[in-house]
Amino acid sequence: MLNAQQEAVNARRQWRQGLVRPTAGIAPRMTQTNMIALPADWAYDFLLFAQRNQKACPILDVSDAGSWRTVLAEDADLRTDLPQYRVWRDGVLVEEITDAMEIWEEHPDLVTFLIGCSFTFEWPLMAAGIEVRHIRDNCNVPMYRTNKMCRPAGRLKGELVVSMRPIAHERVADAATITSRFPAVHGAPVHIGAPQALGIADIMKPDYGDAVRIEEGEVPVFWACGVTPQAVIQASRPPFALTHAPGHMFITNIHDSRYQI
Amino acid sequence: MLNAQQEAVNARRQWRQGLVRPTAGIAPRMTQTNMIALPADWAYDFLLFAQRNQKACPILDVSDAGSWRTVLAEDADLRTDLPQYRVWRDGVLVEEITDAMEIWEEHPDLVTFLIGCSFTFEWPLMAAGIEVRHIRDNCNVPMYRTNKMCRPAGRLKGELVVSMRPIAHERVADAATITSRFPAVHGAPVHIGAPQALGIADIMKPDYGDAVRIEEGEVPVFWACGVTPQAVIQASRPPFALTHAPGHMFITNIHDSRYQI
Repeated sequence: MLNAQQEAVNARRQWRQGLVRPTAGIAPRMTQTNMIALPADWAYDFLLFAQRNQKACPILDVSDAGSWRTVLAEDADLRTDLPQYRVWRDGVLVEEITDAMEIWEEHPDLVTFLIGCSFTFEWPLMAAGIEVRHIRDNCNVPMYRTNKMCRPAGRLKGELVVSMRPIAHERVADAATITSRFPAVHGAPVHIGAPQALGIADIMKPDYGDAVRIEEGEVPVFWACGVTPQAVIQASRPPFALTHAPGHMFITNIHDSRYQI
Repeated sequence: MLNAQQEAVNARRQWRQGLVRPTAGIAPRMTQTNMIALPADWAYDFLLFAQRNQKACPILDVSDAGSWRTVLAEDADLRTDLPQYRVWRDGVLVEEITDAMEIWEEHPDLVTFLIGCSFTFEWPLMAAGIEVRHIRDNCNVPMYRTNKMCRPAGRLKGELVVSMRPIAHERVADAATITSRFPAVHGAPVHIGAPQALGIADIMKPDYGDAVRIEEGEVPVFWACGVTPQAVIQASRPPFALTHAPGHMFITNIHDSRYQI
């Protein structure tokens, strides 16, 4: 029988070998993170932005400039151990890659931020009998840019991005309560129902990830999302950034109980 | 009848007029914070240190360089609205003052960090019928430097500082549970009983604040403390720092419910 941490190690090995797929539902109970790496002279602005927008950007680790290591998984290499990366130049997405070794050689001073991901609290939701639609349907979670501006910091600004899960009306309060205990991976929902109030014109057309079915008797529930930094990159245009591809997260060696209140 | 926020406004006015006293038990339910202001070129190191040591340094706001304003109390002036400040040069405490206007003129680029204070969760403790000894005895909370090193960041390192409250054995679990719901003001205890395991030789000789009685049937309970940055200053010797005096906190306009999980 594999223990939980071994499942994380195995998943990272698969991504390193080139497998590309969203990470929801992989490595039960192991904390997952978003990633953004920026040139060192942008690190303070980003760390300040994250502090000012903790709901969207709860930081779990920051690497020293030039290091692709993290205390969240000491055997991991952040250049290769995510299933898919995005390369941004002057605020424009220029490439999706599965291996960032060459990019790192081009930018040896990157500071890497690992930001808690809501995939982490999907295990406690499922343990409570709440269906997580994108896991059930084996696709990526839908994510939306909203009309809510984050609090700016230095040269950085941008809109809040949210993830959405349809939840049965009678379980919405449970979903809010359970996820509230995990503030390090976005915590309680930021919005329940009424997508139009977030500026979402069509719930079936997410800005990132896949659309999912919303059944009769279900309400769309929105959580702050660690893809927010990618909206910030687009709005703020740093000369270079390397991020994960939405839904294609870094899986750590840290059990979710470490972050539960 | 004064509302809760008005009590915060009134308290700050008293400190501004020169009153010096610890702030525990003042302005019920209003969030209190530690303060450290550093020259701008030390700001990244400190923000990173805080991220790496969130239990001791949960940051609630960071001012832009040179600003003495905060979103936590828009009418406040951080140069005058704490009851007492400490001035540090090259890691040495050189002065305690009640007004930092002149110091700010000398250092116009300070970045000010406001860090959650455990005085905030003393109201919920008392509401649950748990006595808070230093409030009952009208003195400052006892604080201790420990033998636990924080995770360093850049040029900053130092020992964890803890605050201590004696709690009746049968209420220790309640105290842990109640405070765990306030991670932004240090959350659950880091240590219960056994002061010697933290390297505290004599519980009646705190490094900061006042000693308090420990009665028969009570256990010393230790929470991470926002005076940790002052131990970091001593160990790391930045050329200049301005902090609050231990126990003499900044009282914000934010009700504690904002930070409750």
